[in-house]
Amino acid sequence: MSEHKVVRIGFVGLGTVGQGVWKHLEQDQGDLERRLGARIELVRAAVRDPGKKDRRVKIDASKLTTDALAVARDPSLDIVCELMGGIETPKQVALEVLRQGKVLITANKALLCEHGKELFEAARQHNGRIFFEGSVCGGIPIIKALSEGLVANRFPLIYGILNGTCNYILTRIEREGKTFDEILRDAQAKGYADSPPDLDIDGWDTAHKAVILTFLAHGVWVNLKDVEVEGIRKVTSDDIMLAKELGDFKIKLFAIIQRDLKTNKLSIRVHPTLVDERKVLARVDDVFNAVSVTGDVVGTTTYIGRGAGSDATASAVISDIVDAVIGLTGKDRNSKWNIKDYLPSNGTGPEVSLAGPDEIIGKYYFRFMVTDETGILAKIATAFANNGISLSQIRQQPRPQNTSSLIMTTHTTSERSVKNVLAELERTAALKVKPFYLRVADFDE
Amino acid sequence: MSEHKVVRIGFVGLGTVGQGVWKHLEQDQGDLERRLGARIELVRAAVRDPGKKDRRVKIDASKLTTDALAVARDPSLDIVCELMGGIETPKQVALEVLRQGKVLITANKALLCEHGKELFEAARQHNGRIFFEGSVCGGIPIIKALSEGLVANRFPLIYGILNGTCNYILTRIEREGKTFDEILRDAQAKGYADSPPDLDIDGWDTAHKAVILTFLAHGVWVNLKDVEVEGIRKVTSDDIMLAKELGDFKIKLFAIIQRDLKTNKLSIRVHPTLVDERKVLARVDDVFNAVSVTGDVVGTTTYIGRGAGSDATASAVISDIVDAVIGLTGKDRNSKWNIKDYLPSNGTGPEVSLAGPDEIIGKYYFRFMVTDETGILAKIATAFANNGISLSQIRQQPRPQNTSSLIMTTHTTSERSVKNVLAELERTAALKVKPFYLRVADFDE
Repeated sequence: MSEHKVVRIGFVGLGTVGQGVWKHLEQDQGDLERRLGARIELVRAAVRDPGKKDRRVKIDASKLTTDALAVARDPSLDIVCELMGGIETPKQVALEVLRQGKVLITANKALLCEHGKELFEAARQHNGRIFFEGSVCGGIPIIKALSEGLVANRFPLIYGILNGTCNYILTRIEREGKTFDEILRDAQAKGYADSPPDLDIDGWDTAHKAVILTFLAHGVWVNLKDVEVEGIRKVTSDDIMLAKELGDFKIKLFAIIQRDLKTNKLSIRVHPTLVDERKVLARVDDVFNAVSVTGDVVGTTTYIGRGAGSDATASAVISDIVDAVIGLTGKDRNSKWNIKDYLPSNGTGPEVSLAGPDEIIGKYYFRFMVTDETGILAKIATAFANNGISLSQIRQQPRPQNTSSLIMTTHTTSERSVKNVLAELERTAALKVKPFYLRVADFDE
Repeated sequence: MSEHKVVRIGFVGLGTVGQGVWKHLEQDQGDLERRLGARIELVRAAVRDPGKKDRRVKIDASKLTTDALAVARDPSLDIVCELMGGIETPKQVALEVLRQGKVLITANKALLCEHGKELFEAARQHNGRIFFEGSVCGGIPIIKALSEGLVANRFPLIYGILNGTCNYILTRIEREGKTFDEILRDAQAKGYADSPPDLDIDGWDTAHKAVILTFLAHGVWVNLKDVEVEGIRKVTSDDIMLAKELGDFKIKLFAIIQRDLKTNKLSIRVHPTLVDERKVLARVDDVFNAVSVTGDVVGTTTYIGRGAGSDATASAVISDIVDAVIGLTGKDRNSKWNIKDYLPSNGTGPEVSLAGPDEIIGKYYFRFMVTDETGILAKIATAFANNGISLSQIRQQPRPQNTSSLIMTTHTTSERSVKNVLAELERTAALKVKPFYLRVADFDE
């Protein structure tokens, strides 16, 4: 098979995902060579500690370096996989790779969310390519589905569970009735949650992924500050129980990307959400991820799988590598390559703009912790009435020490009205504890 | 944009799917041209009746012909979409297109199931390409997921609901408690089932799709006669009710493709199956399709969406067209193209062989219609005992006219043992009505 082309790959970062990729490429080298008509050569890797003993793969010491940029700049490489985590060094690495007109493969959602625009611009200028299947939902080929499989569609609605840690914690609160803090500590002890857990728990990791999906679906890089982000810290087992009582709802941390195809107003939100137990996404528990994609041609398609884990993400990175190899080793190498460019670019589609709080509408669930004094309900009800919000269900649940939790669900209203109610209640000083509220997923699909 | 390359497309068959494709390509022409850097030209179409008035798209009469082979042979075309249905003419069309080294796009699962091996061989010989995303599960990009997104994986298990008509009928029997015949007639009146309905109802359409998924996942074209196929005609509302009582099971028509990664024994089956109500696939109702794919690297991923309908399938066909256009219009046209070849080819992977009835194991549900005479249960129980099958649950339900339905579920056993029990009962003439049995989906994922 000496006529086979050779594609040379370097790694920057060789943690669990990188080792998974290396291991599977090594194991399947013969098989891949037969299928691709090209040989994949694992050339070198930049790692923090070349002397580390407990890697899943045995790598010759001569292939290891601590110099990330040396790998990024290595002129002999065709593809560089950036799998190190963090933002600053990965950004330098990415720009180096792209400026040489090479293939960058990354699973780094924070990097893409923060610097995606600049990276794709560098790719365009220097004829480089970026592959990033591993950045969203681990092994679920959602990037490929959105950008290739569903290429005929515009997307009024994309929503889903993008963070396995949050889903695991919510599932366990629901099953065990324990407090958020108890479950979080146990999840950390078991390795299902990082320490500190903020990036996951506070919704930022989900938001990073939502920004990437927005780019794929709508061709714009939305600034993270324009994403409404709320994590799961305030969700209690009471909420989960009451949600069930109120109408067989479960609570999931959703990213929701909505675009009005007439006005092209776009909203991106991350928040705990009440979802009808009969919906498929309500059934997606533990560390699983799921994305529901509604296209104007195809209707709604749903994708479910493990959202993280070294092997799931390795599966995604390898699919990127294979796509790149196919692109790099066409019949005639002079064509350089023919890899699909992911760049829909700001200017090419109809311009989208961000929806304002009047344009984001839905149903809401409120929890008020109230003391047993007369007039509280009147004040709360008046605030809703003043802002034109009509209520659907009301339930009061006694709590220790003369307090109650008062639950209200609303009919359809706007984010603006909800914010106004909260502000009004704050002004009247009616409540000692800030109200907690959840959105209700109530989508026509 | 005069420098843009032009890709010329012809259609053979312009029914609802073809019209959907034509309509969306026309509507989005400008947008697609910007995104692809190439112009897609809808050149001509072969139709049964060029004078037909009620098409969703207005097409100039000069573009229409009744001669399918004239379109297939037209040297000016780059891509031919075969969307006519049937097998013989589509096969001729497909071979003509491929022998000219062109792109064939088809959604014709019967054609691929029947002649896939020959077509892919012709494609290989003449450097043609076959795209067929629309052939399985309508708009769900399952072909792309299996062959590209999950390329790093071997697949011990693929199963799912591949036929919307059957799922719709089973869902309605479950909800309404009516008979199979009543629901089928109503489904036909509503256009959800063909007349005659045999291809769907008897499992053959599901089997066609299973054969295609097997090719993608395992690189072999399995003969339809080697697929165990049972339809849904014998499923009664009693079965559905009893399945629920026995353990919160639903009944779904599944295709199940299993491969033992150690022995490379492969089995492909289509049959009504009991599935735990808590599983996601049990929640996939009405005309929706779903596929669960377990890969050795990625774990289990699941894909859900509308399995048919002109727009869903059009979405899939357009994604094929876009992939082909990208392949056909690389930087340097001299490369001809650089389209991924779907052909894993028989010889390249580890050889698979078909599993025998001893190697297919699982749990089973039996329904016996018995008359109220002593000794029947003893004969049935003896037959199970003689064949080493141990029983899990037993329930008898009185029925009109001195009959009962006797339900039994088994622990894990083999298809061989089950067939032996049935033969033994037939020999002893213990039963007046042939027993009905279902497999239980009990997969480790």
